[in-house]
Amino acid sequence: IRIGQGFDAHRWGEGDSVWLCGVEIVHTQTLIGHSDADAGLHALTDALLGAAGLGDIGDHFPPTDPQWKGASSDRFLLHAVDLITQRGGSIVNVDVTLICERPRIKPHREAMRARLAEILGIAIDRVSVKATTTEGMGFTGRQEGLAAQAVCAIEI
Amino acid sequence: IRIGQGFDAHRWGEGDSVWLCGVEIVHTQTLIGHSDADAGLHALTDALLGAAGLGDIGDHFPPTDPQWKGASSDRFLLHAVDLITQRGGSIVNVDVTLICERPRIKPHREAMRARLAEILGIAIDRVSVKATTTEGMGFTGRQEGLAAQAVCAIEI
Amino acid sequence: IRIGQGFDAHRWGEGDSVWLCGVEIVHTQTLIGHSDADAGLHALTDALLGAAGLGDIGDHFPPTDPQWKGASSDRFLLHAVDLITQRGGSIVNVDVTLICERPRIKPHREAMRARLAEILGIAIDRVSVKATTTEGMGFTGRQEGLAAQAVCAIEI
Ligand SMILES: [Mg+2]
Ligand SMILES: [Mg+2]
Ligand SMILES: [Mg+2]
Repeated sequence: IRIGQGFDAHRWGEGDSVWLCGVEIVHTQTLIGHSDADAGLHALTDALLGAAGLGDIGDHFPPTDPQWKGASSDRFLLHAVDLITQRGGSIVNVDVTLICERPRIKPHREAMRARLAEILGIAIDRVSVKATTTEGMGFTGRQEGLAAQAVCAIEI
Repeated sequence: IRIGQGFDAHRWGEGDSVWLCGVEIVHTQTLIGHSDADAGLHALTDALLGAAGLGDIGDHFPPTDPQWKGASSDRFLLHAVDLITQRGGSIVNVDVTLICERPRIKPHREAMRARLAEILGIAIDRVSVKATTTEGMGFTGRQEGLAAQAVCAIEI
Repeated sequence: IRIGQGFDAHRWGEGDSVWLCGVEIVHTQTLIGHSDADAGLHALTDALLGAAGLGDIGDHFPPTDPQWKGASSDRFLLHAVDLITQRGGSIVNVDVTLICERPRIKPHREAMRARLAEILGIAIDRVSVKATTTEGMGFTGRQEGLAAQAVCAIEI
């Protein structure tokens, strides 16, 4: 078993939907980034790369590279999964926490878990998505942006 | 083995004691929340639920539900432990970090570890409570609130 | 297997180099602290101590103790490694995330991994160093300071 951890944050901006953990949610704002700014997928991709000692998301998908502009982040996560699988590894479980005041995550949790399980190629009971707020404090509390943390256990 | 991670934050307000990791500490302020606002117990409860893929603390104990008003958070943690035990699982170890400028945690660490070990039903050497500051920066540094992080390993 | 997690932050101040994960980087500022303020090493030291249930870095190296003034933080990490080894334990893998807008970490990543592997006494493929930003938000985004998170898995 090896473990990894990831952290990511993106800024809120004008828009009418946001991608989180591979699911599009109708919302009054969107997250800004070079790709689709899915902080949940980015944190989880980093956790997998970290567990496997394979660098970070910025190495594999440089934000300065125009080919990743507007990219759907599930390809980032899938790439990390492929790297682990190619080395004979497998994913034991993952746990993602989304830190934001809005949108509400709970109504979308099962869709997010199902989508992550699909990309990761593991059973849904090995996939956790949680949400919390910072009670109005800090950049997430002031709703300047959303942060995500993830941990994972892999066998490799 | 599966692993989980939790994060929680609560705001400082008027009061003369604070609950942290199941221990009441005399302090010049208290943490504000619907329950007793024990951010250490909340982060750890979320870590356990995350490792087991069982949702988050907000699912099991909605802050909008009046029955949890002022609730002692050890019941939240105990509920997560029970859910894991009922599934034939067991807790391997837990590690909690409290992020605050004050109060000092060290004088209360052993009491916190003992209380957590008691609720979790594991040996005290499998329970860690640590503290750090953000050196005056951010919402914890400005003493607007306290944050807590936790990780856990479980067998299930 | 047991797991641990650590978090640390230090404030930027006047200087011309910064220590991160045991490597000195030429930079326009330095991190301020009682020791060399290597937040990466401090977070990792705390993760190891947490996994082993051995307190935190402040217990072993009190910032009020003059003997640690300006200390090279690799001795803190080495001490945690020694405590684990003395108990018959071993380190499975570690994953460190540095959260800052600057300096760029990628050019120094392999040197950091090599140095950590050396101190930890494990193969470099079991050592991960990642970097992320908070997109201009919060204390790391405003470049008031740098934060670091670490997780580890140990056998003990
Ligand atoms: Mg990102
Ligand atoms: Mg809470
Ligand atoms: Mg430090």
